[in-house]
Amino acid sequence: MAIGPARGEFAEQAVRAGGGQPTDVDAQADALVWLDPGDLAGLRRAVDTASSARWVQLPMAGIERVSADGLLDHGRTWTSAKGAYAEPVAEHALTLALAGLRVLRRRITARSWGEPAGESLYDQPVTILGGGGIAVKLLELLAPLRVTATVVRRRTEPVPGAARTVDSSRLPEALTDARVVFLALALTPGTEHIIGAAELARMRSDGWLVNVARGRHVDTDALVAALSRGAIGGAALDVTDPEPLPDGHPLWALDRCIITPHTADTQEMVERLLAQRIQENVARFAAGEPLAGVIDPAAGY
Amino acid sequence: MAIGPARGEFAEQAVRAGGGQPTDVDAQADALVWLDPGDLAGLRRAVDTASSARWVQLPMAGIERVSADGLLDHGRTWTSAKGAYAEPVAEHALTLALAGLRVLRRRITARSWGEPAGESLYDQPVTILGGGGIAVKLLELLAPLRVTATVVRRRTEPVPGAARTVDSSRLPEALTDARVVFLALALTPGTEHIIGAAELARMRSDGWLVNVARGRHVDTDALVAALSRGAIGGAALDVTDPEPLPDGHPLWALDRCIITPHTADTQEMVERLLAQRIQENVARFAAGEPLAGVIDPAAGY
Repeated sequence: MAIGPARGEFAEQAVRAGGGQPTDVDAQADALVWLDPGDLAGLRRAVDTASSARWVQLPMAGIERVSADGLLDHGRTWTSAKGAYAEPVAEHALTLALAGLRVLRRRITARSWGEPAGESLYDQPVTILGGGGIAVKLLELLAPLRVTATVVRRRTEPVPGAARTVDSSRLPEALTDARVVFLALALTPGTEHIIGAAELARMRSDGWLVNVARGRHVDTDALVAALSRGAIGGAALDVTDPEPLPDGHPLWALDRCIITPHTADTQEMVERLLAQRIQENVARFAAGEPLAGVIDPAAGY
Repeated sequence: MAIGPARGEFAEQAVRAGGGQPTDVDAQADALVWLDPGDLAGLRRAVDTASSARWVQLPMAGIERVSADGLLDHGRTWTSAKGAYAEPVAEHALTLALAGLRVLRRRITARSWGEPAGESLYDQPVTILGGGGIAVKLLELLAPLRVTATVVRRRTEPVPGAARTVDSSRLPEALTDARVVFLALALTPGTEHIIGAAELARMRSDGWLVNVARGRHVDTDALVAALSRGAIGGAALDVTDPEPLPDGHPLWALDRCIITPHTADTQEMVERLLAQRIQENVARFAAGEPLAGVIDPAAGY
């Protein structure tokens, strides 16, 4: 069970806890646990070296760069951390939605007692794009608020906790009555700019867009335009396009925009959850059981 | 069923929906529904006029001013709206806690991409002061985050959803390990300044204080001192002392302080919920059933 690019202590412990034996990356390794989400060149070299590895575990949930780089060969099983970080990301999505509806941007920048304002999320309709782990956890968090949730996903297999699950062709109608539209889907060529001018125009004038997925899901220029003319309630973005958002970008100055710097899941939150996922999959691999987070190379996530 | 100081349409509808007949305030009225939380002189006149009224419904959840004014005579039943606004207030408390842990003050005032920071509330210990409607609803909202909740209240009757319920004598120890301390209790002479220098000193250095109750529960000078020297993680306050918080008050400038201007329940949220409570109590009154929100004059809430 090779660990690369270097054998971090938490990963060694996780591999051992799953019943595996940590090694360096070599030609004898039956599997490769990769820890650096940014080092794609290193990943390519490691995969070439570990030629016997039948399984590669990646450390990130969104693997659009690995997919675009053509690394996902069909000769072995690839798993991402998809679902593993769902809890903190769903929590961040809820935080952003509540912060938007309770006008926290106005409150936090105020230096004087303000006028009453703010809306409750209780009993409101919401729409979630994506039916994976984040959506499931977000629906759990939203359940006590009695929201009516529509999930839009590629398949129409119902998502637990959602009032209805529809496929992407029904996206336009799913946007129209939502108090909050959550983006919690994978970035693929088919979902890039899934929210553009037409989709923003369909949203309620008091509807909030919350993005905890990828910046490129949203046409930033169209969003700036919609926010500038008050066409939607606001946007709360943990991810942006471009990212990092450069100083002076119009989004920084917009009253109804809240930006967090891709911190829905911080390294501290992630490490513990990734260790759990590695341990779980190492044990499953040894037992010949189906792995968690298997990537479909054709779908790109 | 008299309505004062004036017969607002929503209150008339609520009285009728409960099976009552709305009237002006006069000596024949068997009950008085009072709608203005600020007009205590008017309330005193109305109570004197409606001398036959066996029941007075107040519009606010916290009635410390009515109690202090000596209005709560024992000759009739007084009910407040306690519990009626619990949902939006609990939601606001959750919003403030999440905003604190996710460093939203820093994020919202930033005009540049920031460094990773932020904490998750999943699996954390929290402490709630108060065991009423807000606490119950807050525990519902916190349940999917798997918090371990300690409730501190006057009685030790367990609160649903809390891991443990302790009486006020155990407050000091209940403060020590809480990631978030929520204030959701009634203001009485016994709970004024329940959080002072000694209590703040017992809190974790990363613990957040969230107050959705009354400003006077907290010794403001002690809080300013604790925040100024970084002794606690932060404070998120929907209520302050003094209130409104005057311009230039030190709390406005503190990095780890989030202030909302007593908007946990806005007039819009309250009106619908108060109408429900009036309707419910009018129907119970007619049926001779126990009323919701009965005030204990000795306890002061």
